[in-house]
Amino acid sequence: MAVAILAAATTMAQTTKKSFTLNDLLGGGTTYWNLQPKYMFTSWWGETPLELTVDEVKTLKGGKSQTLFTAEALNTALGEKLIRSCTNLTFPYADQPLAKVQTAKEIVLIDFQKKAVVWRGAIQEGASELVWNKESRAMAYCIGSNVFVQKADGTRRQLTSDGDDDIVYGHSVSRDEFGISNGLFWSPDGQRLAFYKKDQRRIPSYPQVDITQRIAATTVDKYPMAGCETEDVSVAVYDVATDKTVWLQNPKPMTDYMTNLSWAPDGKKLYVFELNRDQNFMQLFGYDAATGQKDAEPLVEEKHPKYVEPLHVLVFLPWDATKAVMQTRRDNWNHLWLIDLKKKMYPEWHEAQGGGTTCDHVKTTLLTPGDFEVRDFIGFNEKTKNALFTGNVTHPLHHTLWSASVSGKGKMKLLSAGEGVHSATLSSTGAQIIDTYSSPTVTRKVELIQTKDAKSLNLLTAEDPWKDYNVPEITGGSIKAADGVTDLYYRLIKPVGFDASKKYPTVVYVYGGPHAHNVQASRGYYFRGWEIYMAQLGYVVFVLDNRGSQYRGLKFEQATFRHLGDEEMKDQMCGVEFIKTLPYVDANRLGVHGWSFGGFMTTNLMCTYPDVFKVGVAGGPVIDWKYYEVMYGERYMDRPDENAEGYASSSLLPKAKNLKGRLQIIFGYNDPTCVPQHTLSFIRACIDAGTQPDLFTYPGDGHNMFGTDQVHLHERITRYFEDYLK
Amino acid sequence: MAVAILAAATTMAQTTKKSFTLNDLLGGGTTYWNLQPKYMFTSWWGETPLELTVDEVKTLKGGKSQTLFTAEALNTALGEKLIRSCTNLTFPYADQPLAKVQTAKEIVLIDFQKKAVVWRGAIQEGASELVWNKESRAMAYCIGSNVFVQKADGTRRQLTSDGDDDIVYGHSVSRDEFGISNGLFWSPDGQRLAFYKKDQRRIPSYPQVDITQRIAATTVDKYPMAGCETEDVSVAVYDVATDKTVWLQNPKPMTDYMTNLSWAPDGKKLYVFELNRDQNFMQLFGYDAATGQKDAEPLVEEKHPKYVEPLHVLVFLPWDATKAVMQTRRDNWNHLWLIDLKKKMYPEWHEAQGGGTTCDHVKTTLLTPGDFEVRDFIGFNEKTKNALFTGNVTHPLHHTLWSASVSGKGKMKLLSAGEGVHSATLSSTGAQIIDTYSSPTVTRKVELIQTKDAKSLNLLTAEDPWKDYNVPEITGGSIKAADGVTDLYYRLIKPVGFDASKKYPTVVYVYGGPHAHNVQASRGYYFRGWEIYMAQLGYVVFVLDNRGSQYRGLKFEQATFRHLGDEEMKDQMCGVEFIKTLPYVDANRLGVHGWSFGGFMTTNLMCTYPDVFKVGVAGGPVIDWKYYEVMYGERYMDRPDENAEGYASSSLLPKAKNLKGRLQIIFGYNDPTCVPQHTLSFIRACIDAGTQPDLFTYPGDGHNMFGTDQVHLHERITRYFEDYLK
Repeated sequence: MAVAILAAATTMAQTTKKSFTLNDLLGGGTTYWNLQPKYMFTSWWGETPLELTVDEVKTLKGGKSQTLFTAEALNTALGEKLIRSCTNLTFPYADQPLAKVQTAKEIVLIDFQKKAVVWRGAIQEGASELVWNKESRAMAYCIGSNVFVQKADGTRRQLTSDGDDDIVYGHSVSRDEFGISNGLFWSPDGQRLAFYKKDQRRIPSYPQVDITQRIAATTVDKYPMAGCETEDVSVAVYDVATDKTVWLQNPKPMTDYMTNLSWAPDGKKLYVFELNRDQNFMQLFGYDAATGQKDAEPLVEEKHPKYVEPLHVLVFLPWDATKAVMQTRRDNWNHLWLIDLKKKMYPEWHEAQGGGTTCDHVKTTLLTPGDFEVRDFIGFNEKTKNALFTGNVTHPLHHTLWSASVSGKGKMKLLSAGEGVHSATLSSTGAQIIDTYSSPTVTRKVELIQTKDAKSLNLLTAEDPWKDYNVPEITGGSIKAADGVTDLYYRLIKPVGFDASKKYPTVVYVYGGPHAHNVQASRGYYFRGWEIYMAQLGYVVFVLDNRGSQYRGLKFEQATFRHLGDEEMKDQMCGVEFIKTLPYVDANRLGVHGWSFGGFMTTNLMCTYPDVFKVGVAGGPVIDWKYYEVMYGERYMDRPDENAEGYASSSLLPKAKNLKGRLQIIFGYNDPTCVPQHTLSFIRACIDAGTQPDLFTYPGDGHNMFGTDQVHLHERITRYFEDYLK
Repeated sequence: MAVAILAAATTMAQTTKKSFTLNDLLGGGTTYWNLQPKYMFTSWWGETPLELTVDEVKTLKGGKSQTLFTAEALNTALGEKLIRSCTNLTFPYADQPLAKVQTAKEIVLIDFQKKAVVWRGAIQEGASELVWNKESRAMAYCIGSNVFVQKADGTRRQLTSDGDDDIVYGHSVSRDEFGISNGLFWSPDGQRLAFYKKDQRRIPSYPQVDITQRIAATTVDKYPMAGCETEDVSVAVYDVATDKTVWLQNPKPMTDYMTNLSWAPDGKKLYVFELNRDQNFMQLFGYDAATGQKDAEPLVEEKHPKYVEPLHVLVFLPWDATKAVMQTRRDNWNHLWLIDLKKKMYPEWHEAQGGGTTCDHVKTTLLTPGDFEVRDFIGFNEKTKNALFTGNVTHPLHHTLWSASVSGKGKMKLLSAGEGVHSATLSSTGAQIIDTYSSPTVTRKVELIQTKDAKSLNLLTAEDPWKDYNVPEITGGSIKAADGVTDLYYRLIKPVGFDASKKYPTVVYVYGGPHAHNVQASRGYYFRGWEIYMAQLGYVVFVLDNRGSQYRGLKFEQATFRHLGDEEMKDQMCGVEFIKTLPYVDANRLGVHGWSFGGFMTTNLMCTYPDVFKVGVAGGPVIDWKYYEVMYGERYMDRPDENAEGYASSSLLPKAKNLKGRLQIIFGYNDPTCVPQHTLSFIRACIDAGTQPDLFTYPGDGHNMFGTDQVHLHERITRYFEDYLK
């Protein structure tokens, strides 16, 4: 069942090879970057591929590297050190020799041929959320919770003035769910700015304590918990020319979600994916950007007895502003669909393959048919009229690069190597792609690909940075899920210096929640550095993506609906049954570790299967979904009053009494995601039940630890297994 | 050096004896009371000693037990179940057959001879801090932060109305330091009520987080940190007859301390021990209770280069209202001093033996001369004109019962057995005492003592409740302090089944701070139940009272001034040197445990002597005195701006980097005494320094754990030593 092997030569004389430190293996480690595969910083200037180094910008036309300019020469000519590193430059204009530098203080456009500054705009002090539009060269940004616009000539307008901790303009809303990550949206021509307003007056502030103050004090952290009061969201459009702001006239409850704001190419319309609080009814509506008037009719509608989750903006065809591509999992798989805004349909509700129903008011066409998921929609080749994307078309673990005909009824073509996990950046017209990928047998490659005919040119083949190190064997494989039919994929890491006749302590690393996966066909099957460290210390590490995880379709994900944890654990126990069949796994020394949803899983597994797992380390766990936030929590669990049974049975508080093995829970003391109430409630429940978990916290840290804290954390996790599992 | 042995028979066949559980040994344990020495609930009705049981009240005249009344008979006669347990009754009137019952709802006076209720007063719902005066039968109490008085006839007055979280009337002030424990003070005749006002508007609220709310929320906890803004205190007097309130006219800064409010017998004057914020200048002033007018001149004044600490009220002689007894350590030892308020002196400052200076404006006379401390001042024998007290007169560890002539120039007489630690309750005229005591050889005795001639009658001799158990050997002894001259006393517990040829892991239990001691000549040298448990598991336990601890005089205590921790640790290291000389102590397996100041000591010892202690458990520690409160903290450390060096060198934050052994810190998540900022700052410092302490917290608990939490805690502490020290 093993698919491939990262390091073939574990039988070599290991005494001559080096061992890793945690600093070598963790992103926050001091020596991490010394041991990473070589990387190439690339960019596009129109159709010219560029390589960016600290000192210079090189063109890579035809794979041939040629200096375009050096930072030093340009800085000297400009008489000021504007460019500190060329890796920070962008080239926004396909047809102009302009490089853009953005510092904390200004944005500068440099003509690198004439060696002259052609434009510069100062950034107001304290500005955040800054978005610059290359057409109008206007900036939009926030100072605190208010929105400002600064035109190319430097004149400023403050668009809102009543922003504070409660009323927030121009920032992301809905806790970054539904694909939302910002709150300022320029129209393509930079003449209109859409922005969010979030009214969170009804939401209590979770008491996050800042211990670095002279006397500890709380900071404001509005946290809407499942079933509780939530935020009101609305959207405004500011018109630079008229200096007027209009509000989108949406009669729906303001607690509904307004997601994935999408501008029409001409900036006259703004499209919004609207979702009810129950998250089971989505409508895509257009609004008149000049008046805020809502269209009488939606473009498309989707319902689902479990949930609908819009995650992507509409992307209009560069050559036809009446058509756009949307992404939806209405047929189970995340696919590209073409919407023809002009071609009206009689609106009827139809069953969809994803288990829900859809009602299209305009014509929609599936562009990427097949039992796979589109991972990243990259853009279009404007000439060949193809949509370009990565997706796991041929195998769930391999995310390769494809084109699909926009007009040609699902004709798809592989553009990249057929293995590995690819990410791509597109030239201005989409004629070329720079593709970076790795696979269990490819450390890293960068290819320049012609999207028309898939011709490729190798730009970089990174050598194995670990060739002088003792590297454990990493294999991938699959087992059946608890449902008996679904394939689940795993990664298995054997101890360094593996001896098949020995029995090793074994740690299951787990996440298990939606929108994430731990196994894919990239280098080392997507290993985490800590696993290598554990293998070096003599542990087997096993990682399995259970049902509910990412890129396996909607039904796979929704198997967990309303009872998070249950199916996920059943699948993980299939994994445990599997590893128990391995002669070198010591079933009496099984450990489990996970963070966040994986912390929930770890704690749950320790308390549900107390005789299976001897040691666990749970990080930033969810303990009771009622303490999790509205947007994510209610999607998977509904509201507590609608799903009392599910909340009760998925809560770990009643399971605290079952704890038998050693469980250490670790949390960021200022975790704004899984707030400390989770862990502390569990600790309280254990105390009341007479069980003895262990505990640690990182004061000042949030949901995750970075830098030296990350190294400290993994020393700590490792020590716990060393103390109790060895 | 060993002084005595608790259990002589450790060589007996141990298989036939039982072992303890933590529930047997800890106050919060479910079976604790089953294994405690027999106790006798006693009380006084005038000169009649009483024994109170649940069912009845018995007289003990001449040691002869005779039923006075039964609860059942009285309840039946009264037609209502007023008395639930006779142990809750008091007998406030020496000359009337009245028993007082106080429930949550009312106070009732029952004539137990006539079997009739003679008075009852309802308690207003929500009342706290209730103080009842037996003469006027008026109640004073608080509802929230406001003061109310209810007269014997049930009529009520609300004395204040602007009380809230910031302005607090009628409650204790100064964080219960300086002997303050309440905020309402009836004059002896119950016609006037003195009460405190605390204005804490300038003090920030420490963010204590209540995780039991649906969404965690902070509670108000005004916490003045050393050197920061503190509370303003003032005192009012309400006159029941005139229904008027006057405020004491004190021109001193309101941040000064007003402590130990003492009424003159006639209720016309109120005496206040006044102390500046620096706590090095104390004045005893009288105020006119009718006008609030302050006397022009104080009665006595004390200064000290380190600090003065008034801890006790003035107690007037029952037979002479012009004289009172005060307690002071002006001559190093806490002693009783007679103040003759009428005998004016020319005020001159004199050096005092305690290291400070005094200035008496009236005549003062030392009543209890000698190098010992008065522990409890019990009262007077009115006929013989003697003051009665317990004190360590003959040996620092033995607190025996004495009388001292009020007029007779220091003539003192031993009233009790000459060994052990005694506590006493006095009959109405002081002719008799009920004395309860234990010693290393006496499990518990209760004696009825005539204070005139020390004649005593045994009321109870409790047998050893542990005779069926394997009990470790407990010895006491002394070593020299780090100064080479001072005697320090210790308790040493050997493992159950001790084998002199073995080497045992050894745990030092430590407190080390002022106003507390761990070793005295009571049962088992004042052992803590957990020590017995550890001895049962095969540990040696060693407990030493270092300089700075209680009942050894002012200089002994003040050795630590401005650099808490330093001298204390030096002394503890003398203890370590001593136990290292014991052949059965394994110097490679030394642990240390302590709570609060002892948590400070434990963390400090772990980080200062990282090669000495392998394992430590520190509970609710002080980490940096700047996070401790004004009243206690500034007494011993001055303000941070006055003693920057002392605060810096006593802070454990810079020592976090030295941590080498295993240290678990445990704190009450809602600790209002050593606020969590202490522990969390240390944890942060360790993370930054790359050291790895362990951590646990008890959500909802304060500075200490009680009940089942106490058992859980000690399971946890024990497990830590079992994991890492064995």
